[in-house]
Amino acid sequence: MSESIELVPNGTLITPTAEEGRQLAIKMARLIIKATQPDAAVRATLRAVYADDANMLIAIGQTVATEFATIAAANNYWRK
Amino acid sequence: MSESIELVPNGTLITPTAEEGRQLAIKMARLIIKATQPDAAVRATLRAVYADDANMLIAIGQTVATEFATIAAANNYWRK
Amino acid sequence: MSESIELVPNGTLITPTAEEGRQLAIKMARLIIKATQPDAAVRATLRAVYADDANMLIAIGQTVATEFATIAAANNYWRK
Amino acid sequence: MSESIELVPNGTLITPTAEEGRQLAIKMARLIIKATQPDAAVRATLRAVYADDANMLIAIGQTVATEFATIAAANNYWRK
Amino acid sequence: MSESIELVPNGTLITPTAEEGRQLAIKMARLIIKATQPDAAVRATLRAVYADDANMLIAIGQTVATEFATIAAANNYWRK
Amino acid sequence: MSESIELVPNGTLITPTAEEGRQLAIKMARLIIKATQPDAAVRATLRAVYADDANMLIAIGQTVATEFATIAAANNYWRK
Repeated sequence: MSESIELVPNGTLITPTAEEGRQLAIKMARLIIKATQPDAAVRATLRAVYADDANMLIAIGQTVATEFATIAAANNYWRK
Repeated sequence: MSESIELVPNGTLITPTAEEGRQLAIKMARLIIKATQPDAAVRATLRAVYADDANMLIAIGQTVATEFATIAAANNYWRK
Repeated sequence: MSESIELVPNGTLITPTAEEGRQLAIKMARLIIKATQPDAAVRATLRAVYADDANMLIAIGQTVATEFATIAAANNYWRK
Repeated sequence: MSESIELVPNGTLITPTAEEGRQLAIKMARLIIKATQPDAAVRATLRAVYADDANMLIAIGQTVATEFATIAAANNYWRK
Repeated sequence: MSESIELVPNGTLITPTAEEGRQLAIKMARLIIKATQPDAAVRATLRAVYADDANMLIAIGQTVATEFATIAAANNYWRK
Repeated sequence: MSESIELVPNGTLITPTAEEGRQLAIKMARLIIKATQPDAAVRATLRAVYADDANMLIAIGQTVATEFATIAAANNYWRK
Protein backbone atom coordinates (compact mmCIF):
# COMPACT_ATOMS: atom_id res chain seq x y z
CA MET A 1 0.00 0.00 0.00
CA SER A 2 1.23 3.50 -0.81
CA GLU A 3 0.29 6.59 1.20
CA SER A 4 1.60 9.06 -1.37
CA ILE A 5 -1.81 9.51 -2.98
CA GLU A 6 -4.44 11.79 -1.44
CA LEU A 7 -6.78 9.54 0.55
CA VAL A 8 -9.33 12.19 1.64
CA PRO A 9 -10.22 14.51 -1.26
CA ASN A 10 -10.04 18.15 -0.06
CA GLY A 11 -8.75 16.87 3.27
CA THR A 12 -12.10 16.99 5.05
CA LEU A 13 -15.10 14.76 5.82
CA ILE A 14 -17.41 17.78 5.90
CA THR A 15 -19.63 18.26 2.83
CA PRO A 16 -22.43 20.74 2.15
CA THR A 17 -24.99 18.05 1.28
CA ALA A 18 -25.79 14.37 1.84
CA GLU A 19 -25.42 13.85 -1.90
CA GLU A 20 -21.83 15.12 -1.81
CA GLY A 21 -21.22 13.04 1.33
CA ARG A 22 -22.27 9.98 -0.62
CA GLN A 23 -19.94 10.89 -3.50
CA LEU A 24 -17.12 11.30 -0.99
CA ALA A 25 -17.84 7.83 0.42
CA ILE A 26 -17.49 6.32 -3.07
CA LYS A 27 -14.26 8.23 -3.70
CA MET A 28 -12.72 7.31 -0.35
CA ALA A 29 -13.54 3.62 -0.87
CA ARG A 30 -11.97 3.80 -4.34
CA LEU A 31 -8.83 5.54 -3.05
CA ILE A 32 -8.11 2.70 -0.60
CA ILE A 33 -8.15 0.29 -3.54
CA LYS A 34 -5.84 2.67 -5.40
CA ALA A 35 -3.46 2.85 -2.41
CA THR A 36 -3.40 -0.96 -2.20
CA GLN A 37 -3.01 -1.53 -5.93
CA PRO A 38 -1.25 1.54 -7.37
CA ASP A 39 -0.94 0.08 -10.91
CA ALA A 40 -3.70 1.74 -12.98
CA ALA A 41 -3.68 -0.99 -15.64
CA VAL A 42 -4.23 -3.73 -13.07
CA ARG A 43 -7.03 -1.70 -11.46
CA ALA A 44 -8.73 -1.27 -14.85
CA THR A 45 -8.67 -5.04 -15.34
CA LEU A 46 -10.05 -5.66 -11.87
CA ARG A 47 -12.76 -3.03 -12.36
CA ALA A 48 -14.04 -4.97 -15.37
CA VAL A 49 -14.17 -8.05 -13.15
CA TYR A 50 -16.14 -6.59 -10.26
CA ALA A 51 -18.53 -4.51 -12.37
CA ASP A 52 -19.89 -7.74 -13.84
CA ASP A 53 -19.92 -9.73 -10.62
CA ALA A 54 -23.07 -9.46 -8.49
CA ASN A 55 -21.26 -10.60 -5.37
CA MET A 56 -18.52 -7.99 -5.65
CA LEU A 57 -20.96 -5.20 -6.47
CA ILE A 58 -22.79 -6.01 -3.24
CA ALA A 59 -19.48 -6.04 -1.33
CA ILE A 60 -18.59 -2.61 -2.74
CA GLY A 61 -21.98 -1.39 -1.56
CA GLN A 62 -21.14 -2.64 1.93
CA THR A 63 -17.86 -0.74 2.00
CA VAL A 64 -19.44 2.47 0.72
CA ALA A 65 -22.17 2.13 3.37
CA THR A 66 -19.50 1.87 6.08
CA GLU A 67 -17.57 4.89 4.79
CA PHE A 68 -20.81 6.85 4.51
CA ALA A 69 -21.77 6.08 8.12
CA THR A 70 -18.61 7.90 9.25
CA ILE A 71 -19.09 10.83 6.87
CA ALA A 72 -22.76 11.21 7.83
CA ALA A 73 -21.89 11.28 11.55
CA ALA A 74 -19.16 13.86 10.85
CA ASN A 75 -21.79 16.07 9.22
CA ASN A 76 -24.41 15.53 11.95
CA TYR A 77 -26.45 13.87 9.22
CA TRP A 78 -26.92 17.21 7.43
CA ARG A 79 -29.84 17.94 9.79
CA LYS A 80 -31.15 21.49 9.44
CA MET B 1 -18.11 4.42 -10.83
CA SER B 2 -20.10 7.40 -12.03
CA GLU B 3 -21.32 10.20 -9.75
CA SER B 4 -23.69 11.72 -12.29
CA ILE B 5 -26.70 9.82 -10.95
CA GLU B 6 -28.56 11.00 -7.84
CA LEU B 7 -27.17 8.94 -4.95
CA VAL B 8 -29.47 10.26 -2.18
CA PRO B 9 -33.08 10.50 -3.39
CA ASN B 10 -34.51 13.94 -2.43
CA GLY B 11 -31.06 14.87 -1.12
CA THR B 12 -31.83 14.09 2.53
CA LEU B 13 -31.55 11.25 5.05
CA ILE B 14 -34.56 12.58 6.97
CA THR B 15 -37.82 10.67 6.45
CA PRO B 16 -41.20 11.02 8.16
CA THR B 17 -41.40 7.37 9.20
CA ALA B 18 -39.22 4.33 9.89
CA GLU B 19 -40.94 2.59 6.98
CA GLU B 20 -39.80 5.31 4.57
CA GLY B 21 -36.35 5.23 6.17
CA ARG B 22 -36.17 1.54 5.35
CA GLN B 23 -37.23 2.19 1.76
CA LEU B 24 -34.53 4.85 1.50
CA ALA B 25 -31.93 2.35 2.76
CA ILE B 26 -32.92 -0.08 -0.03
CA LYS B 27 -32.78 2.69 -2.64
CA MET B 28 -29.42 4.03 -1.49
CA ALA B 29 -27.89 0.54 -1.53
CA ARG B 30 -29.25 0.02 -5.05
CA LEU B 31 -27.93 3.38 -6.26
CA ILE B 32 -24.36 2.48 -5.29
CA ILE B 33 -24.65 -0.63 -7.47
CA LYS B 34 -26.02 1.58 -10.24
CA ALA B 35 -23.11 4.04 -9.86
CA THR B 36 -20.61 1.18 -10.01
CA GLN B 37 -22.28 -0.61 -12.93
CA PRO B 38 -24.12 2.05 -14.99
CA ASP B 39 -25.17 -0.38 -17.75
CA ALA B 40 -28.86 -1.20 -17.11
CA ALA B 41 -28.75 -4.40 -19.17
CA VAL B 42 -25.82 -5.78 -17.18
CA ARG B 43 -27.55 -4.85 -13.92
CA ALA B 44 -30.71 -6.68 -15.02
CA THR B 45 -28.68 -9.82 -15.68
CA LEU B 46 -26.93 -9.55 -12.31
CA ARG B 47 -30.26 -8.95 -10.53
CA ALA B 48 -31.52 -12.29 -11.86
CA VAL B 49 -28.36 -13.86 -10.44
CA TYR B 50 -28.56 -12.47 -6.92
CA ALA B 51 -32.35 -12.81 -6.53
CA ASP B 52 -31.93 -16.60 -6.81
CA ASP B 53 -28.81 -16.87 -4.69
CA ALA B 54 -29.33 -17.28 -0.95
CA ASN B 55 -25.83 -16.07 -0.15
CA MET B 56 -26.18 -12.85 -2.12
CA LEU B 57 -29.64 -12.13 -0.73
CA ILE B 58 -28.17 -12.32 2.76
CA ALA B 59 -25.30 -10.03 1.72
CA ILE B 60 -27.79 -7.49 0.35
CA GLY B 61 -29.59 -7.65 3.68
CA GLN B 62 -26.31 -6.83 5.42
CA THR B 63 -25.74 -3.77 3.25
CA VAL B 64 -29.28 -2.50 3.73
CA ALA B 65 -28.92 -2.98 7.50
CA THR B 66 -25.76 -0.84 7.45
CA GLU B 67 -27.39 1.92 5.39
CA PHE B 68 -30.44 1.82 7.66
CA ALA B 69 -28.31 2.22 10.80
CA THR B 70 -27.13 5.59 9.45
CA ILE B 71 -30.59 6.70 8.35
CA ALA B 72 -32.14 5.68 11.66
CA ALA B 73 -29.51 7.63 13.63
CA ALA B 74 -30.11 10.66 11.38
CA ASN B 75 -33.80 10.52 12.29
CA ASN B 76 -33.21 9.94 16.02
CA TYR B 77 -34.87 6.58 15.45
CA TRP B 78 -38.22 8.26 14.80
CA ARG B 79 -38.78 8.42 18.58
CA LYS B 80 -41.82 10.46 19.50
CA MET C 1 -36.71 -4.98 -5.14
CA SER C 2 -40.28 -4.07 -4.32
CA GLU C 3 -41.27 -1.54 -1.67
CA SER C 4 -44.96 -2.48 -1.62
CA ILE C 5 -44.54 -4.83 1.33
CA GLU C 6 -44.36 -3.51 4.89
CA LEU C 7 -40.66 -3.33 5.77
CA VAL C 8 -41.00 -2.25 9.43
CA PRO C 9 -43.75 -4.25 11.20
CA ASN C 10 -46.03 -1.82 13.13
CA GLY C 11 -44.01 1.06 11.64
CA THR C 12 -41.77 1.55 14.65
CA LEU C 13 -38.38 0.46 16.01
CA ILE C 14 -39.62 0.87 19.59
CA THR C 15 -40.44 -2.37 21.42
CA PRO C 16 -41.40 -2.99 25.05
CA THR C 17 -38.64 -5.54 25.65
CA ALA C 18 -35.24 -6.63 24.37
CA GLU C 19 -36.79 -9.96 23.45
CA GLU C 20 -39.31 -8.26 21.15
CA GLY C 21 -36.50 -6.07 19.79
CA ARG C 22 -34.63 -9.21 18.83
CA GLN C 23 -37.73 -10.65 17.15
CA LEU C 24 -38.11 -7.39 15.22
CA ALA C 25 -34.48 -7.64 14.05
CA ILE C 26 -35.15 -11.12 12.65
CA LYS C 27 -38.34 -9.93 10.93
CA MET C 28 -36.73 -6.84 9.43
CA ALA C 29 -33.82 -8.87 8.06
CA ARG C 30 -36.30 -11.34 6.55
CA LEU C 31 -38.41 -8.56 4.99
CA ILE C 32 -35.41 -7.21 3.06
CA ILE C 33 -34.96 -10.66 1.52
CA LYS C 34 -38.69 -10.68 0.73
CA ALA C 35 -38.45 -7.23 -0.90
CA THR C 36 -35.49 -8.37 -3.00
CA GLN C 37 -37.00 -11.75 -3.96
CA PRO C 38 -40.81 -11.34 -3.86
CA ASP C 39 -41.51 -14.85 -5.20
CA ALA C 40 -42.55 -16.97 -2.19
CA ALA C 41 -41.76 -20.25 -3.92
CA VAL C 42 -38.21 -19.17 -4.74
CA ARG C 43 -37.72 -17.94 -1.16
CA ALA C 44 -38.91 -21.31 0.20
CA THR C 45 -36.32 -23.07 -1.95
CA LEU C 46 -33.57 -20.70 -0.84
CA ARG C 47 -34.59 -21.08 2.82
CA ALA C 48 -33.99 -24.83 2.57
CA VAL C 49 -30.54 -24.01 1.18
CA TYR C 50 -29.40 -21.60 3.88
CA ALA C 51 -30.92 -23.48 6.83
CA ASP C 52 -28.55 -26.38 6.07
CA ASP C 53 -25.50 -24.27 5.28
CA ALA C 54 -23.30 -23.34 8.23
CA ASN C 55 -21.74 -20.43 6.37
CA MET C 56 -25.08 -18.84 5.49
CA LEU C 57 -26.49 -19.34 8.98
CA ILE C 58 -23.53 -17.41 10.34
CA ALA C 59 -24.07 -14.67 7.72
CA ILE C 60 -27.73 -14.40 8.73
CA GLY C 61 -26.58 -14.02 12.32
CA GLN C 62 -24.34 -11.15 11.24
CA THR C 63 -27.21 -9.34 9.55
CA VAL C 64 -29.56 -9.81 12.50
CA ALA C 65 -26.82 -8.51 14.83
CA THR C 66 -26.52 -5.36 12.70
CA GLU C 67 -30.29 -4.78 12.61
CA PHE C 68 -30.47 -5.38 16.35
CA ALA C 69 -27.74 -2.81 17.05
CA THR C 70 -29.99 -0.15 15.51
CA ILE C 71 -33.13 -1.34 17.29
CA ALA C 72 -31.32 -1.55 20.65
CA ALA C 73 -30.00 2.01 20.27
CA ALA C 74 -33.50 3.22 19.35
CA ASN C 75 -34.79 1.74 22.60
CA ASN C 76 -31.91 3.06 24.74
CA TYR C 77 -31.05 -0.58 25.29
CA TRP C 78 -34.22 -1.10 27.36
CA ARG C 79 -32.34 0.28 30.38
CA LYS C 80 -34.61 0.83 33.37
CA MET D 1 -37.16 -18.84 11.46
CA SER D 2 -39.08 -19.48 14.66
CA GLU D 3 -39.59 -16.86 17.36
CA SER D 4 -40.89 -19.30 19.96
CA ILE D 5 -37.48 -19.76 21.55
CA GLU D 6 -36.07 -17.20 23.99
CA LEU D 7 -33.73 -14.98 21.98
CA VAL D 8 -32.40 -12.82 24.85
CA PRO D 9 -31.54 -14.97 27.90
CA ASN D 10 -33.05 -13.36 31.05
CA GLY D 11 -34.66 -10.76 28.79
CA THR D 12 -32.01 -8.10 29.32
CA LEU D 13 -28.78 -6.82 27.75
CA ILE D 14 -27.53 -5.64 31.16
CA THR D 15 -24.89 -7.84 32.79
CA PRO D 16 -22.83 -7.31 35.98
CA THR D 17 -19.48 -7.78 34.23
CA ALA D 18 -17.81 -7.55 30.81
CA GLU D 19 -17.11 -11.28 31.04
CA GLU D 20 -20.83 -12.04 31.37
CA GLY D 21 -21.54 -9.57 28.57
CA ARG D 22 -19.21 -11.53 26.35
CA GLN D 23 -20.93 -14.79 27.29
CA LEU D 24 -24.27 -13.18 26.45
CA ALA D 25 -22.95 -12.15 23.03
CA ILE D 26 -21.99 -15.76 22.28
CA LYS D 27 -25.40 -17.01 23.45
CA MET D 28 -27.37 -14.42 21.48
CA ALA D 29 -25.42 -15.21 18.30
CA ARG D 30 -26.10 -18.92 18.84
CA LEU D 31 -29.81 -18.36 19.46
CA ILE D 32 -30.25 -16.67 16.08
CA ILE D 33 -28.81 -19.79 14.44
CA LYS D 34 -31.21 -21.87 16.56
CA ALA D 35 -34.17 -19.70 15.50
CA THR D 36 -33.18 -20.06 11.83
CA GLN D 37 -32.46 -23.80 12.01
CA PRO D 38 -34.64 -25.23 14.83
CA ASP D 39 -33.64 -28.86 14.15
CA ALA D 40 -31.08 -29.80 16.83
CA ALA D 41 -29.70 -32.72 14.82
CA VAL D 42 -29.00 -30.51 11.79
CA ARG D 43 -27.37 -27.89 14.03
CA ALA D 44 -25.10 -30.55 15.58
CA THR D 45 -23.96 -31.58 12.10
CA LEU D 46 -23.33 -27.97 11.08
CA ARG D 47 -21.45 -27.29 14.33
CA ALA D 48 -18.99 -30.05 13.45
CA VAL D 49 -18.52 -28.35 10.08
CA TYR D 50 -17.81 -24.84 11.31
CA ALA D 51 -15.68 -25.85 14.31
CA ASP D 52 -13.13 -27.31 11.89
CA ASP D 53 -13.31 -24.53 9.31
CA ALA D 54 -10.98 -21.58 9.86
CA ASN D 55 -13.06 -19.31 7.66
CA MET D 56 -16.28 -19.99 9.55
CA LEU D 57 -14.63 -19.64 12.95
CA ILE D 58 -13.48 -16.19 11.92
CA ALA D 59 -16.99 -15.34 10.68
CA ILE D 60 -18.46 -16.43 14.02
CA GLY D 61 -15.96 -14.16 15.73
CA GLN D 62 -17.20 -11.27 13.58
CA THR D 63 -20.82 -11.88 14.58
CA VAL D 64 -19.99 -12.17 18.27
CA ALA D 65 -17.98 -8.93 18.03
CA THR D 66 -21.03 -7.18 16.55
CA GLU D 67 -23.39 -8.51 19.22
CA PHE D 68 -20.88 -7.56 21.92
CA ALA D 69 -20.64 -3.98 20.64
CA THR D 70 -24.36 -3.56 21.36
CA ILE D 71 -24.20 -5.26 24.76
CA ALA D 72 -21.13 -3.23 25.78
CA ALA D 73 -22.85 0.05 24.82
CA ALA D 74 -25.97 -1.03 26.78
CA ASN D 75 -23.78 -1.47 29.85
CA ASN D 76 -21.83 1.77 29.38
CA TYR D 77 -18.82 -0.47 28.88
CA TRP D 78 -18.91 -1.54 32.55
CA ARG D 79 -16.99 1.64 33.42
CA LYS D 80 -16.70 2.21 37.17
CA MET E 1 -18.99 -23.22 22.29
CA SER E 2 -17.73 -23.35 25.87
CA GLU E 3 -17.99 -20.44 28.28
CA SER E 4 -15.61 -21.93 30.87
CA ILE E 5 -12.60 -20.06 29.51
CA GLU E 6 -11.98 -16.41 30.39
CA LEU E 7 -13.34 -14.36 27.47
CA VAL E 8 -12.26 -10.88 28.66
CA PRO E 9 -8.68 -10.95 30.02
CA ASN E 10 -8.58 -9.13 33.41
CA GLY E 11 -12.36 -8.75 33.19
CA THR E 12 -12.29 -5.20 31.84
CA LEU E 13 -12.34 -3.31 28.54
CA ILE E 14 -10.40 -0.44 30.10
CA THR E 15 -6.71 -0.26 29.18
CA PRO E 16 -4.07 2.39 29.97
CA THR E 17 -3.07 2.89 26.33
CA ALA E 18 -4.37 2.49 22.78
CA GLU E 19 -1.59 -0.02 22.17
CA GLU E 20 -2.85 -2.24 25.00
CA GLY E 21 -6.42 -1.75 23.73
CA ARG E 22 -5.32 -3.08 20.38
CA GLN E 23 -3.65 -6.09 22.04
CA LEU E 24 -6.87 -6.73 23.96
CA ALA E 25 -8.86 -6.66 20.69
CA ILE E 26 -6.59 -9.35 19.24
CA LYS E 27 -6.88 -11.47 22.40
CA MET E 28 -10.67 -11.14 22.61
CA ALA E 29 -11.06 -12.14 18.96
CA ARG E 30 -8.81 -15.15 19.56
CA LEU E 31 -10.71 -16.20 22.69
CA ILE E 32 -14.00 -16.43 20.76
CA ILE E 33 -12.30 -18.87 18.37
CA LYS E 34 -11.02 -20.77 21.40
CA ALA E 35 -14.51 -20.88 22.94
CA THR E 36 -15.96 -22.19 19.66
CA GLN E 37 -13.19 -24.72 19.01
CA PRO E 38 -11.77 -25.74 22.42
CA ASP E 39 -9.43 -28.40 20.97
CA ALA E 40 -5.94 -26.86 20.95
CA ALA E 41 -4.62 -29.30 18.35
CA VAL E 42 -7.41 -28.47 15.90
CA ARG E 43 -6.85 -24.75 16.48
CA ALA E 44 -3.12 -25.14 15.75
CA THR E 45 -3.95 -26.81 12.44
CA LEU E 46 -6.44 -24.09 11.53
CA ARG E 47 -3.97 -21.37 12.51
CA ALA E 48 -1.52 -22.72 9.95
CA VAL E 49 -4.33 -22.52 7.38
CA TYR E 50 -5.39 -18.94 7.98
CA ALA E 51 -1.88 -17.52 8.47
CA ASP E 52 -1.10 -18.46 4.87
CA ASP E 53 -4.42 -17.38 3.40
CA ALA E 54 -4.71 -13.76 2.32
CA ASN E 55 -8.50 -13.84 2.44
CA MET E 56 -8.63 -15.12 6.02
CA LEU E 57 -5.95 -12.71 7.22
CA ILE E 58 -8.09 -9.86 5.92
CA ALA E 59 -11.16 -11.35 7.64
CA ILE E 60 -9.27 -11.55 10.94
CA GLY E 61 -8.35 -7.90 10.49
CA GLN E 62 -12.05 -7.09 10.09
CA THR E 63 -12.95 -8.86 13.33
CA VAL E 64 -10.14 -7.20 15.28
CA ALA E 65 -11.24 -3.81 13.90
CA THR E 66 -14.77 -4.45 15.18
CA GLU E 67 -13.58 -5.54 18.63
CA PHE E 68 -11.27 -2.53 18.78
CA ALA E 69 -14.10 -0.12 17.96
CA THR E 70 -15.84 -1.24 21.15
CA ILE E 71 -12.70 -1.13 23.29
CA ALA E 72 -11.76 2.32 21.96
CA ALA E 73 -15.22 3.70 22.75
CA ALA E 74 -15.02 2.18 26.25
CA ASN E 75 -11.78 4.08 26.80
CA ASN E 76 -13.05 7.36 25.31
CA TYR E 77 -10.40 6.82 22.65
CA TRP E 78 -7.62 7.40 25.19
CA ARG E 79 -8.04 11.16 24.65
CA LYS E 80 -6.02 13.26 27.09
CA MET F 1 -0.45 -13.83 16.54
CA SER F 2 2.41 -11.90 18.12
CA GLU F 3 1.92 -8.76 20.21
CA SER F 4 5.60 -7.79 20.22
CA ILE F 5 5.21 -5.44 17.25
CA GLU F 6 3.83 -1.91 17.69
CA LEU F 7 0.13 -2.10 16.77
CA VAL F 8 -0.73 1.62 17.08
CA PRO F 9 1.97 3.79 15.46
CA ASN F 10 2.93 6.62 17.87
CA GLY F 11 0.60 5.06 20.44
CA THR F 12 -2.33 7.34 19.71
CA LEU F 13 -5.49 7.48 17.57
CA ILE F 14 -5.33 11.28 17.47
CA THR F 15 -4.07 12.78 14.21
CA PRO F 16 -3.85 16.43 13.07
CA THR F 17 -5.83 15.80 9.86
CA ALA F 18 -8.37 13.45 8.28
CA GLU F 19 -5.74 12.54 5.70
CA GLU F 20 -3.36 11.34 8.41
CA GLY F 21 -6.26 9.55 10.11
CA ARG F 22 -6.84 7.67 6.91
CA GLN F 23 -3.15 6.75 6.65
CA LEU F 24 -3.30 5.51 10.24
CA ALA F 25 -6.31 3.32 9.39
CA ILE F 26 -4.34 1.68 6.57
CA LYS F 27 -1.32 1.15 8.83
CA MET F 28 -3.35 -0.28 11.71
CA ALA F 29 -5.12 -2.72 9.38
CA ARG F 30 -1.76 -3.79 7.96
CA LEU F 31 -0.24 -4.25 11.42
CA ILE F 32 -2.94 -6.75 12.42
CA ILE F 33 -2.00 -8.83 9.37
CA LYS F 34 1.65 -8.50 10.43
CA ALA F 35 0.83 -9.62 13.98
CA THR F 36 -1.08 -12.63 12.64
CA GLN F 37 1.53 -13.59 10.04
CA PRO F 38 4.90 -12.34 11.32
CA ASP F 39 6.91 -13.92 8.46
CA ALA F 40 7.75 -11.09 6.04
CA ALA F 41 8.39 -13.43 3.12
CA VAL F 42 4.97 -15.07 3.47
CA ARG F 43 3.31 -11.64 3.74
CA ALA F 44 5.06 -10.50 0.54
CA THR F 45 3.69 -13.53 -1.29
CA LEU F 46 0.18 -12.93 0.06
CA ARG F 47 0.37 -9.23 -0.84
CA ALA F 48 0.95 -10.19 -4.47
CA VAL F 49 -2.15 -12.37 -4.23
CA TYR F 50 -4.56 -9.81 -2.81
CA ALA F 51 -3.30 -6.85 -4.87
CA ASP F 52 -4.47 -8.67 -8.00
CA ASP F 53 -7.72 -9.98 -6.57
CA ALA F 54 -10.75 -7.69 -6.86
CA ASN F 55 -12.59 -9.47 -4.07
CA MET F 56 -9.74 -9.12 -1.59
CA LEU F 57 -9.12 -5.48 -2.49
CA ILE F 58 -12.75 -4.77 -1.66
CA ALA F 59 -12.41 -6.69 1.63
CA ILE F 60 -9.33 -4.64 2.55
CA GLY F 61 -11.36 -1.51 1.85
CA GLN F 62 -14.02 -2.77 4.27
CA THR F 63 -11.47 -3.28 7.04
CA VAL F 64 -9.87 0.11 6.50
CA ALA F 65 -13.34 1.71 6.58
CA THR F 66 -14.01 0.06 9.94
CA GLU F 67 -10.67 1.16 11.42
CA PHE F 68 -11.23 4.67 10.07
CA ALA F 69 -14.66 4.91 11.71
CA THR F 70 -12.99 4.49 15.11
CA ILE F 71 -10.16 6.90 14.34
CA ALA F 72 -12.57 9.52 12.99
CA ALA F 73 -14.74 9.30 16.12
CA ALA F 74 -11.62 9.62 18.30
CA ASN F 75 -10.78 12.85 16.49
CA ASN F 76 -14.34 14.24 16.60
CA TYR F 77 -14.22 13.98 12.82
CA TRP F 78 -11.62 16.77 12.64
CA ARG F 79 -14.49 19.31 12.82
CA LYS F 80 -13.26 22.89 13.24
